[in-house]
Amino acid sequence: MRVAIIGGGAAGMSAASRIKAIRPDWIVSVFEKTNFVSHAPCGIPFYVSGFFEHFDELCTYDANFFRSERNIDVHTNSEVIDISENSLVVEEMGKEREYEWDKLLFATGAKPKRLAVQNEDLEGIIYVEDILAAEKIKRLALKSEKIVIVGSGYIGVEMADAVSKLGKKVTVIEIAERPLPEYDAEIAAILKSEMEKYVNLRLSEKVVAFEGKDRVERVVTDKTEYECDFVIVAIGVRPNVDLAKKIVKLGKSGAIRTNRKLETNKEGIYAAGDCAETFNIVTEKPDWIHLATPANKMGYVAGVNIAGFELEYPGAVKCQLTSFHDLEIGKVGLSEYEAIKEGYKVVSAFVTSKSSAKYFQNGLIHLKVVADQNGKLLGVQAAGNGVGMRIYGATSLLYKKANVRDLFFTDFPYYPPVSRVWDPLVIAARNLFRKLGIP
Amino acid sequence: MRVAIIGGGAAGMSAASRIKAIRPDWIVSVFEKTNFVSHAPCGIPFYVSGFFEHFDELCTYDANFFRSERNIDVHTNSEVIDISENSLVVEEMGKEREYEWDKLLFATGAKPKRLAVQNEDLEGIIYVEDILAAEKIKRLALKSEKIVIVGSGYIGVEMADAVSKLGKKVTVIEIAERPLPEYDAEIAAILKSEMEKYVNLRLSEKVVAFEGKDRVERVVTDKTEYECDFVIVAIGVRPNVDLAKKIVKLGKSGAIRTNRKLETNKEGIYAAGDCAETFNIVTEKPDWIHLATPANKMGYVAGVNIAGFELEYPGAVKCQLTSFHDLEIGKVGLSEYEAIKEGYKVVSAFVTSKSSAKYFQNGLIHLKVVADQNGKLLGVQAAGNGVGMRIYGATSLLYKKANVRDLFFTDFPYYPPVSRVWDPLVIAARNLFRKLGIP
Repeated sequence: MRVAIIGGGAAGMSAASRIKAIRPDWIVSVFEKTNFVSHAPCGIPFYVSGFFEHFDELCTYDANFFRSERNIDVHTNSEVIDISENSLVVEEMGKEREYEWDKLLFATGAKPKRLAVQNEDLEGIIYVEDILAAEKIKRLALKSEKIVIVGSGYIGVEMADAVSKLGKKVTVIEIAERPLPEYDAEIAAILKSEMEKYVNLRLSEKVVAFEGKDRVERVVTDKTEYECDFVIVAIGVRPNVDLAKKIVKLGKSGAIRTNRKLETNKEGIYAAGDCAETFNIVTEKPDWIHLATPANKMGYVAGVNIAGFELEYPGAVKCQLTSFHDLEIGKVGLSEYEAIKEGYKVVSAFVTSKSSAKYFQNGLIHLKVVADQNGKLLGVQAAGNGVGMRIYGATSLLYKKANVRDLFFTDFPYYPPVSRVWDPLVIAARNLFRKLGIP
Repeated sequence: MRVAIIGGGAAGMSAASRIKAIRPDWIVSVFEKTNFVSHAPCGIPFYVSGFFEHFDELCTYDANFFRSERNIDVHTNSEVIDISENSLVVEEMGKEREYEWDKLLFATGAKPKRLAVQNEDLEGIIYVEDILAAEKIKRLALKSEKIVIVGSGYIGVEMADAVSKLGKKVTVIEIAERPLPEYDAEIAAILKSEMEKYVNLRLSEKVVAFEGKDRVERVVTDKTEYECDFVIVAIGVRPNVDLAKKIVKLGKSGAIRTNRKLETNKEGIYAAGDCAETFNIVTEKPDWIHLATPANKMGYVAGVNIAGFELEYPGAVKCQLTSFHDLEIGKVGLSEYEAIKEGYKVVSAFVTSKSSAKYFQNGLIHLKVVADQNGKLLGVQAAGNGVGMRIYGATSLLYKKANVRDLFFTDFPYYPPVSRVWDPLVIAARNLFRKLGIP
């Protein structure tokens, strides 16, 4: 059996490893267009801000590890340029080669959305494309004085955190009215206050052009313009399906449609990671959830199924955690605004509480819980101190389709330095009891 | 309606508050034998080690708050000394008084087990009885040089943490072969190493007597003896049911038997908190779970039912979190040793992993997951760094009767400074897949 995997990121290498563990005699070939495999771009902001020195720490293992330890046929600097029902055309070392396959996995990831404005190809304007961008971003960030970041989703916020910690003058331009626009206004407002301490945050403002001679000198918006030496564009990503769409069906989201075994509409062709559409456990609908932990698990599941065993991927609840300077921020499931867009009738509770016993000076946590009118939990968002613990607790509950009663009765631990006897999650549940008529 | 509540701790005051919120016209009387209500003894170690100065911070609110803000008839320094089917005899201000009641709640808490050895009444030997002991412990700890702690359950470990941080020479004597004996040996071994850096930890050793003239000077064990100025005894607690057993049935555990509405075998008489037996969600059996968060929620539920509405208490999963110096420790559900004692055939995985991405220096987390042979989760224990988050996540899963597949697929968030793309919980689940024949 010959298995071809297109893309050597989290999903691709997880799948390859799993297949070889189950089927050591199969030939598993991974085609990766960069020089790196098992690359983990979530670490880029920490590389930029100097938490670690060596760029290659962004990869879990290098290609030689997978070749020698796991006996995987890894091709780096190998771009798949064409595909048919049983073969691939790969450009490697300047030549085109054809490889036949019996089973195929798309693990081609996502790619940044483009601004599509004038002069966006000027020197000094960088998209957070892949880990190759990391070195360039760090180099440019260190030698620049005035940096503009376009976009304040997760990548924008983390990049703003990183470059502001380098002591740079940072302007963040966001087209929506709040940073992290998928959060509700109450939580985003807290992030906004924290961001404004360190960066010039411009909301409801649209970039319309870049200006400069050889390299970027100014960002022009619909309101004004900003001098700069360096621009990072992070306005979101889309599934990288240029190749896949020639051969398999896409879902509504634009990512590759898959079933629970992560097989596409064609037998023997699978998709996993950021290029694949999967299932949202909260909405119980197909969804495109482009996050690192689901990507790894989808790779694992696809690998098991490719290897001829059966394992179903249940989907994900879309859990995220980040921080900006001293503020932790997290979200799982839907915000109120997303839930309403999905058609739910919702109730919500917004709670501000100390995160620990009153005699510890750990600061506040702001927490919002959203449920439907039957009490089914739809999502939890938090900002402040002690966010990670609460998001872990909420993630498990959402995964298990819990309701507001469950949130109230789960006995989260009380340890005075880090938690409260009435946990903020429980206080929020109690508030929702009132709105749902529970005594 | 006249409701009498015996005990003004977490359960008693939660119930009283709930009843008055629903039935503002009822008379709700709380009889508390100390001078304090809503006392929270979990904070005692932090008061002793100096995290806060004012002893009364150990109470959520004072009696006057409950009297004036919630209109509760609070009697402090009032000990209930006898009980009948419709009245109580209370000793207050040196006099005996009788109070009639229509509904009754036992919220009498727990009390320390006694060593029952020679001279245990010598001056300088303290049981961590209630918050009144806190001031005495702090005063004696500050002026003592050599302190012996008998017992290394949660209270023993936290007291050892507190007094060792005061710079005292501390000996901890534990009769079992490991500290926190309800944990499995792998996790307890990690705590043992950490404790041995700061205290003289004596395991498998039994206290047989105390010696001293006016006050304690020596602790005698079955192996040797220890000079000391001060002894803290913390060898566990038992339900305080001296009064209740005259009138209602006790369960197997020795605590007051209750149903899901927290009613005892007698109509109109309820029990909540550390004096009451409740339900273990993991074992699906009656259990005595004497912890602060369940106590508060039991009080809430009892209050709702006493007030004439219906709310069922689902039980608890027994979740605990603590720390000793730099080591966080947590447990939810059963250890392997407890599970075997309960009659389960078990599989387990013990994992040691970095708690965050490899390029952050956050240290290790040691994690043990126990499941039954069908993959049902029975418990999670952890020690090291980032324990709180994992215990919160595991608590929700155990509460929802999750299995090993759920533990693997729950998408805990990946944020490089605090977590890993393959969370230690997920790695443990993957290890268990092998043992359970999941591919």
